[in-house]
Parts: sequence; structure tokens; C-alpha cells
Amino acid sequence: MIRESTGIPTTMQALELSAYDERPASLQLVQKPVPQPSQGEVLVRIAATSINPSDLMFLRGDYGVRKRLPVVPGFEGSGVVVRSGGGFPARALVGWRVACAAPDNGDGTWAEYMVTQWNRCAPLRKKTSLEQGASLLVNPLTAFALMEIAARGRHHAIAQTAAASSLGRMIVHLGRRFGIAVINIVRRQEHVEILKSQGAECVLNSSEPGFDERLQEACHQFRATLGFDAVGGEITGQLVHAMPRSSCVLVFGALAKKDCSISPSDFIFDGKRVDGFWLAEWFPRQSLVYQLKTAFRVQDFLQTDLKTEIRERLPLTAGPKAIEDYASRMTDRKILFIPDQNENA
Amino acid sequence: MIRESTGIPTTMQALELSAYDERPASLQLVQKPVPQPSQGEVLVRIAATSINPSDLMFLRGDYGVRKRLPVVPGFEGSGVVVRSGGGFPARALVGWRVACAAPDNGDGTWAEYMVTQWNRCAPLRKKTSLEQGASLLVNPLTAFALMEIAARGRHHAIAQTAAASSLGRMIVHLGRRFGIAVINIVRRQEHVEILKSQGAECVLNSSEPGFDERLQEACHQFRATLGFDAVGGEITGQLVHAMPRSSCVLVFGALAKKDCSISPSDFIFDGKRVDGFWLAEWFPRQSLVYQLKTAFRVQDFLQTDLKTEIRERLPLTAGPKAIEDYASRMTDRKILFIPDQNENA
Repeated sequence: MIRESTGIPTTMQALELSAYDERPASLQLVQKPVPQPSQGEVLVRIAATSINPSDLMFLRGDYGVRKRLPVVPGFEGSGVVVRSGGGFPARALVGWRVACAAPDNGDGTWAEYMVTQWNRCAPLRKKTSLEQGASLLVNPLTAFALMEIAARGRHHAIAQTAAASSLGRMIVHLGRRFGIAVINIVRRQEHVEILKSQGAECVLNSSEPGFDERLQEACHQFRATLGFDAVGGEITGQLVHAMPRSSCVLVFGALAKKDCSISPSDFIFDGKRVDGFWLAEWFPRQSLVYQLKTAFRVQDFLQTDLKTEIRERLPLTAGPKAIEDYASRMTDRKILFIPDQNENA
Repeated sequence: MIRESTGIPTTMQALELSAYDERPASLQLVQKPVPQPSQGEVLVRIAATSINPSDLMFLRGDYGVRKRLPVVPGFEGSGVVVRSGGGFPARALVGWRVACAAPDNGDGTWAEYMVTQWNRCAPLRKKTSLEQGASLLVNPLTAFALMEIAARGRHHAIAQTAAASSLGRMIVHLGRRFGIAVINIVRRQEHVEILKSQGAECVLNSSEPGFDERLQEACHQFRATLGFDAVGGEITGQLVHAMPRSSCVLVFGALAKKDCSISPSDFIFDGKRVDGFWLAEWFPRQSLVYQLKTAFRVQDFLQTDLKTEIRERLPLTAGPKAIEDYASRMTDRKILFIPDQNENA
């Protein structure tokens, strides 16, 4: 590998997508030039990068942003800022360990290096490992944002689908911290047990008979007037229907890959409503103080409430196989790409 | 027929429902006592009473209110107040021609007489016929309320489904009065022509190929950021999808008798939302001044913008057959029950 005097090579390995598809068949390891940061941008040497449900949506072309192909996917990662494109904040970040998000256009984190805007990097505190930092943004910030919305709306309780997912578990923990009761919906008995072992009080299995009645009972008992739905399909409507009058469900994921199905009566006669949540849209709308405070605060809980459990650490060469592994068992902890391992591969 | 000294008989004919069902098989003509008004209530001798989509929902048990059976259906009608149960406003109404709505509990308008609260009666102006008064409340007030919501939200344009219905046509007319462009969705070519002949500028047939693209184009061109959906099922999601970012669709009917089907992406990435509208919930929340002003204002337009076209006038004895006739051709003008015709039957 050719290195510049700064220790930065001129080419790098990256996973590149050349067609949006249900199965990421076109995802392949390529050798491409290390990108150059422009004014206000930084170059990050990626240490670890995660696979999230939003990445899967992106790969099949269902995400809110469709980038020009071919493109390097990956929405978040961690690493060290090794070069600045100019401007004070970008220059000040050089040398810092950061969690970083991909730019809206252009290549993402599933590579050895990525260029992004300086304000898409959150400096990591000493106690935060690069591995934990690789999952700092998407899930913990989403969990925080959703609970923040619940708190601002003075909801006594919330109900969530896909409660056994990484994000769902974070919400279980944050519920206690925010003093907001959490009603958890899962699809399998093993997930009921996992969540209960983590201290969740109310866990309901949607595959069991009598689920609708039990969900309705729980939502009314705890006064769960806000719902978080990461699934779509039938369960959105079941959740809406079970909640008290004038409740709101925020759809923020589409794990079922199906349209949300909701009874008109729930809208008309019970004053319920369904809205959406997208971190990439919500977070930048908050005050800069809130953004900074939250990016730091999240790190306080990375070892506890917001800990991301890691199943496997794979080199970029694992590519499509890693994606399929993850997609087949999404609730079973995270898979991280560790680009550095490639040199040993 | 036995008559009291006041000219009010002791018994009356009424249509009575004894089971909620898809087909109103249990609806039959019965002889029952003329009800007695209590304090704050009035007795109305019904002159004409209409059949609306909300009545059909009620008959099958899908409406927001399920009354104790057996019960006389019918949400609105017109007539003369012939007796008061006491209290100033109720006494003051005696002798007035009124449009009247059924009480939340108890028997409705499909009878020779009905008891209701005084504030569910709107005095008719001289120029308003009892026939037009029979359709004063449900459709014209809903149309007004929806356009009022559009105006308060400063929407430039709205898009509506079931645009060829009585209510849909009223919205077409009110659009011009409110200065709000209206995009109309119908299912049949004949309805396109009817609406265009009534001055509608933008009418789209959802059965035609290319409908989705044309709807999207129209919604963006006119900036239709508010939708009114009386249908449910697939079309709700098609409408949501076609509208610009951050649009809102209000579901207020369920003509398709199917769950609304909406893509999660529209919620998540495009910030769209779906909410409900129910006149019986919305109207009482407005100021009394607004309520009175609107009940009078609506009558100004009953011969023009808010005219209800009448297909047939039938006696109560026509019962279930009249309902089925109506249900089979809902866009083809209204059927009125005229209880008085029974005496000649």
C-alpha cells in the first residue's frame, strides 16, 4: 500500500453497491482512491462501522435517501480524523477519535476512509471505545430522541414494537431513566424472556392468542398514549387500535417491509393519528446546545443503558455474507465491520 | 290513530334496528309510543330524514357510537318542534321548523317523531325547505368544517377522495368560495364528467393507468398539503404518497370498508401524517358563536353550493329496500324518508 508522508494511503478498500436490490448481490469489495475533504469536511480513518436496519433499507432502495450509484453504504462508524479540508471546526477535529455519520450524498462508512462534514462527527470521550462509538449515533440517538419526544409530550407511558431489537432494548432502559413506563411488543417467546431478564416489566408476544386484548388492557392501564413502531404492516394498526383515544403512533422503521394497515375508525372516531420519525430530519432541527449535550450524554450510558451488544467483528471482505447474517437474526446483537482487519485478511 | 288534545298521537311508526349487520335485515317498521321529552329536550315531528354513509356505518355496527338495541337509526332530519320538556331554550323552540340531529343515546330520526336535546336543533330560515333542511347538518356542516380546517391551516389546495359523493361535490363548490384549489379523485369516468360539468377543474380517475403519477403531479403543482379521505383501503395510501412532504390526510369516512394501507416510508422520510375527522367530535369543540354562525351560513348556500340533490322520496315502509337502493348507488343523489307518506300508504 502506497502511503503519503502523512501516513494516509492513496487508495483504500471499500464495499461498493452498484444496484439497489432486495438482496445486496451487487455489494462488492473494491479498491478506490482515498477521498479528499473539501472546506468544512474531514477525512476519517474508519476503525469500526455498524450494520443497522436503516442500512438494509438503503441497500434495497427503500431508504429516504437514494444516492447515486455506485456508492459506499454505511450510515455510521467511528474512527480518527486524519485530515481536514479547511475551516476552523474541521481543522480542530484533526487527531480526535469520533463517531461519524455519512454525508447525505456520497460514500459512507463501509470503507477504510470516509469524508464527511465536520458537524457529522461527535468527539468520543476517553471512556468510550471505538467499538462502542461505532454505534453511537443511529440507535442511541434515536432512542434518546424518541424518549425526549415522549417526555416533551408528557406521556405517562409508551408502547413499542420490535422491542427486542438493539434500539428497543435501549428504550426499555431509558424508560426507567425518564420515568416513562414502556409496553414492549415482541414476536417470539425467547424475546419475552430476554427483555424480562433485562428488567422490562410489560412484554407482550404478538404471536400469542389474546394478544390484542392484552395489548389494549396494558395500553389503557399504563395510559400509553404514544407508540413507537419500527415494523409496519399489521402491527401498526394493532398498536393504534389498542391505544387510548387521541393517541399517536410514530412510525420510524419498516422491518416488516409492508404497508401499515390501520382501521379508518381509529382515525375517525377515536381521534388517533399516525406520524413518522426520522432522526436525520429531527436531530438537526434541535438546538445546537441540545445536539451537543445529547451527543455527550449518550456516551455516559454507552456502558449501561445504551450498550450495543456485539455478536461479531468482521473484515470488509465479509461483505454481503455479513449483511445476510445480520438480516437473518437482527435481534441477536450487532455485527461490526472492522476495516483494519483487512490488512491481515 | 289516537291523538292527544295537542294533536300529537300516542303511538307512531318508526324503523327499528334489532341487530348490527352488514345487511340491515333486522330493520323493520314498528309501531311504538311517541317518546316524551325531558328537561332540556324537545319533541320533533319529523318531516323528512336522510340516509347518509354514516347511517350505513351505524347499521353495520362500525360507527363511532353503538347504541343499545333495538333502536331507531337516522342521524339527521327536519321537522317541527311540537313539544318541550321544559327549560327556556327548549320551550322557545316550540313551533319552529328545525334541522335536527339524533341524541347520542336513544332513538334517531327514521320515525314520525323524535326526542332530542334543544341544542341539536338548528332553526330553519324561511327560505329553507324542510326537504333541504333534512340534509343540513351531516354533509354541509362536514364540508364546511373540512374547508374551515383547510383555511385555518393556510393550505393552498386540498385533495379529496370520493369527490363525486354529495359531500365531495359540496367541497368542490366551497373550494371556490374559500379560494382553495380542490383536486378531485373519483373511480369512474362518468363521475369525471359530472364533476367537470359542475365546474371542477382537476378531476382524476383512480381506475385509469397512470393515475398515481398524475395525482402526484397535481398535488405538487397545486401544493395540496391537506387531504380528505372518505374511502380508506388502498386509496388512502395512494393519496398520502402523492402529496408533498409534511402533508396531512384526514380520514373521515370508510366507504371501502377496508383498512387504510399506507407506506411506512411516507411517514418516516416524508414527514406525512394521517389523522381523523369526526363532525360529532369537532363541531361541539368550536365556539358557540361559530356553531350558530355556521348553522345559519350553511343555509345561505343550500340552494347553490350546498344543495343536496334528491333522487327519491320514500315512506318509512320502504325501509330496508331504500337502504339497499342507496348503498348500491351512493353517488347518485340522496334518498329521503318522508314519514308523513305512511299515513297514505
